[in-house]
Amino acid sequence: MQIADLLKANRERKFFAHYNENPKAYNEDLNASGLNAFQTKLNSNFTLPGNPNTSNFYGEEISPYLQTGLGIHYPKLSADELISNANSAFNQWRKLSPQQRFDILFETLDAVSKRFFEIAYATMHTTGQSFLMSFQASGPHACDRALEVMVTGIEQLQYYPNEVDWVKNMGKFDLTLHKNYKAVPKGIGLVIGCSTFPTWNTVPGVYADLITGNSVIIKPHPKAVYPIAIFVEEMQNVFIKHNLNPNIVQLAIDSTTEPITKILAEHPDVKLIDYTGGNTFGDYVESLGKTCFTEKAGINSVIVDSCQNFNAVAQNIAFSFSLYSGQMCTAPQNIYIPESGVNTPDGVISYENAVEGIRMALKGLMENPKAAAPTLGAIQNDGTISRIEDKIAQHQAQTIQLDVKVENAEFNTARMRVPSIITTDAADSSTYMQECFGPLVFIVKTSGFDETLKIVKDSAAKHGAITCLAYTTDKSKMEQIEDEMNSVFTPVSFNFTGAAFVNQHAAFSDLHVSGGNPSGNATFTNAEYINKRYIWIGNRYML
Amino acid sequence: MQIADLLKANRERKFFAHYNENPKAYNEDLNASGLNAFQTKLNSNFTLPGNPNTSNFYGEEISPYLQTGLGIHYPKLSADELISNANSAFNQWRKLSPQQRFDILFETLDAVSKRFFEIAYATMHTTGQSFLMSFQASGPHACDRALEVMVTGIEQLQYYPNEVDWVKNMGKFDLTLHKNYKAVPKGIGLVIGCSTFPTWNTVPGVYADLITGNSVIIKPHPKAVYPIAIFVEEMQNVFIKHNLNPNIVQLAIDSTTEPITKILAEHPDVKLIDYTGGNTFGDYVESLGKTCFTEKAGINSVIVDSCQNFNAVAQNIAFSFSLYSGQMCTAPQNIYIPESGVNTPDGVISYENAVEGIRMALKGLMENPKAAAPTLGAIQNDGTISRIEDKIAQHQAQTIQLDVKVENAEFNTARMRVPSIITTDAADSSTYMQECFGPLVFIVKTSGFDETLKIVKDSAAKHGAITCLAYTTDKSKMEQIEDEMNSVFTPVSFNFTGAAFVNQHAAFSDLHVSGGNPSGNATFTNAEYINKRYIWIGNRYML
Repeated sequence: MQIADLLKANRERKFFAHYNENPKAYNEDLNASGLNAFQTKLNSNFTLPGNPNTSNFYGEEISPYLQTGLGIHYPKLSADELISNANSAFNQWRKLSPQQRFDILFETLDAVSKRFFEIAYATMHTTGQSFLMSFQASGPHACDRALEVMVTGIEQLQYYPNEVDWVKNMGKFDLTLHKNYKAVPKGIGLVIGCSTFPTWNTVPGVYADLITGNSVIIKPHPKAVYPIAIFVEEMQNVFIKHNLNPNIVQLAIDSTTEPITKILAEHPDVKLIDYTGGNTFGDYVESLGKTCFTEKAGINSVIVDSCQNFNAVAQNIAFSFSLYSGQMCTAPQNIYIPESGVNTPDGVISYENAVEGIRMALKGLMENPKAAAPTLGAIQNDGTISRIEDKIAQHQAQTIQLDVKVENAEFNTARMRVPSIITTDAADSSTYMQECFGPLVFIVKTSGFDETLKIVKDSAAKHGAITCLAYTTDKSKMEQIEDEMNSVFTPVSFNFTGAAFVNQHAAFSDLHVSGGNPSGNATFTNAEYINKRYIWIGNRYML
Repeated sequence: MQIADLLKANRERKFFAHYNENPKAYNEDLNASGLNAFQTKLNSNFTLPGNPNTSNFYGEEISPYLQTGLGIHYPKLSADELISNANSAFNQWRKLSPQQRFDILFETLDAVSKRFFEIAYATMHTTGQSFLMSFQASGPHACDRALEVMVTGIEQLQYYPNEVDWVKNMGKFDLTLHKNYKAVPKGIGLVIGCSTFPTWNTVPGVYADLITGNSVIIKPHPKAVYPIAIFVEEMQNVFIKHNLNPNIVQLAIDSTTEPITKILAEHPDVKLIDYTGGNTFGDYVESLGKTCFTEKAGINSVIVDSCQNFNAVAQNIAFSFSLYSGQMCTAPQNIYIPESGVNTPDGVISYENAVEGIRMALKGLMENPKAAAPTLGAIQNDGTISRIEDKIAQHQAQTIQLDVKVENAEFNTARMRVPSIITTDAADSSTYMQECFGPLVFIVKTSGFDETLKIVKDSAAKHGAITCLAYTTDKSKMEQIEDEMNSVFTPVSFNFTGAAFVNQHAAFSDLHVSGGNPSGNATFTNAEYINKRYIWIGNRYML
């Protein structure tokens, strides 16, 4: 793979993937050896090459499938040790050329790719994702996101020439200055992970810091360390192979009761922070006045106006909010349907029939023994279930709960919950106008298209939105939705049915989070995601 | 001029100028008609095409040469009127394509270029700059900076394709999504000008906002309105010619006693702020949590270690701090000389002789009747003189004051002051470690190169620096200075003598302000200077 081809793919935005997302495309032995590696890790110390002498180990991960602790313990360093290591490593790493960094980082991804199956099991048993999502999201998709970042990085770092002679005619003579241009990295980057997508959401920030010459401390969620620890191990091994300081990337381990994140975030040597997680901590990160890249929560809406085939629409919506039990930041939450119903070529589907259609689509999915359990995965933690149960208790009469029990054939202890639907009127905004993470969605009855669009737009502007799914066959409404939603910096996916799901954001094509509304201040991956991590400096020499 | 050529010039960083900086290159009549236009404006209302019906006019400019009021009054609108106008104009302007915006903005610069001489007189009599600097900085150099911004803008806005078909093979079928990519502008931009460079420091932000589709409110310093008012007039005329709302750009007039800036800056519809000026207000702007681009103050240092010809060095330094009486943000302030003196091929120049050499170079410049007055220009306001006099009063014994009186032959009322030099020891940091705007510099005696570099680096990191001038013939010290100063995000100019001056930052080659130290958070002009003004949005359609 030539850099020129990657640069071209990144600009073109057509389909492009460097790592194959299909587990079946890999050598069959890899699955077995990955599973074996996973099983061997349980109840043991996960040593890292960067900290061979550490005696302090800690871990508190619990499998959402087994509902027992994994017993894996990771090297636990103090904030001071981490910062000191990161400073030493920074002073070495920053001196490499962008091309040298690119080549080494590319090697790290290739090393990681050998362990995609172990990463998949590690992800399953920390996040609760299904095997397939775990494999794809934490392995090939994460690596493609990292590669996209590296490609954008090398492009930006080559924006100015390394050096140039500037010759100005002054009338009687030429004034010549020799100039150089340097992309000077900012220092230490802290990357704070989340419990649901421990590599997909983490590696873009890590590789963005690294390609631009910063050193990195990864602070994963204490309940989802294992998948990213594999990345750190492979990266450190590659650094050592190149006679580099392995602590160019480090893993910061803390506990739920004694978190280390704020100590690291507030340390003056930490210049960059990448964060994925809840709004409260995200707002804190943004308030520190450092260069930061946040992905927080939003409320994702579905606009239902008109369609060709309502069943196909209902199935698509039901799948999108059921996938990984609504624990994706891209999952729809509020589904807006006009009281006058949904226009189709076969006539109007009444509001009541539209609600029933979505209920039936969900029921069909949940009663499909092959599809239900892999779609839902498991719930990452008990907190998600109790928040949803509280909400349902408040709105019992409006709640549609299916009388279906989904079993996971492989793990009968899996923490699962069939998604619920609360129906509500547009006026009852206190019911639905807040993020409700997990397997619960709201169907909101509106007076019509204009009210729907107004509410959805205000919702994105005030509460943030990462996605918006819209169904309309009316060209002028399409344009209006796009213009209004884009004006509050929310992208729109139109008329998705079949295999197209609003949840999925593909590397080298889709911008993940716009950075323009309260759901986050950054994007995977635009030029700004790279450029804020270093400063261009131009020096001038008179020769 | 083709955009492709401009894009190439912008990337290459070689010498490039679209507008001629030499007043003699222009038709001779233009000077006379520019002067006449200036004289006609005095004591009258400056009407603007965007506000034909305004009856409220205000102005308080005072000529630093005449030390009398100009009597020009500008249309004064309320903050609410300005915001309302800007919102209407935004909804029209944002819908134009980047190419359409580029063409129209290019026309505005060409219209402005017809008035370079009037702009020069307007700049002289508001800022106190000499005629030549006024002409160059406010006219061709400002327009080249604006053009550089537009070129960077159009390049960035074309980063992604307008639309693309994304085709993913799903095994048995292809999934095709039609995607578009839109650079959505943020809203209203507020550009806050300063009293010393009312167009050069203002137009980059204005054209950056405009090329990316935002509307702009320019809030000039109430003592330096006239030069930028000419830009606004010409821009509004071009907008009207294209049947566009003239208030795409507006002029916000306020008074020293009733400032409007905070009201505008805090208005929720103002999404972008560009600011040039003092640190206190700059810190306030940065604290608002909006997208902002600041150029504040710093302390610019000169490192003297060794050189080929100390006289040439002394002359260069003396000219650089005398130019426009030290009122340039790029002017050197603190000159560090080791107590052991300065190495030259002809032997060591002792510290005392080095100080004397700088004094003599300044004396030579001030006693040159052709050079002195045009170099100094005039002091923009009395506050600058009183601050310097206070400082000198505190350090009378250490102050070198020349017994030279510089007269301005044309304006015997010009507010002038020959630069003073305070000599001090490195230990007395309270003497020199703060910005001292105007015709006063400090020569700081250090224990040697290591102490010099340590102080200069700390100074840049803590107080900011826009420039650093260094003299050394030692290759390893050059590398060390570059590495250490670049690490605190300060560019270095090495061994400038003759016609090379640290003060000058050329469009299409020099990055003005790094954005990485306390002297400011942005750069004229990198990609980030453009990209923060809009949000990339990608929409997806299933066809």
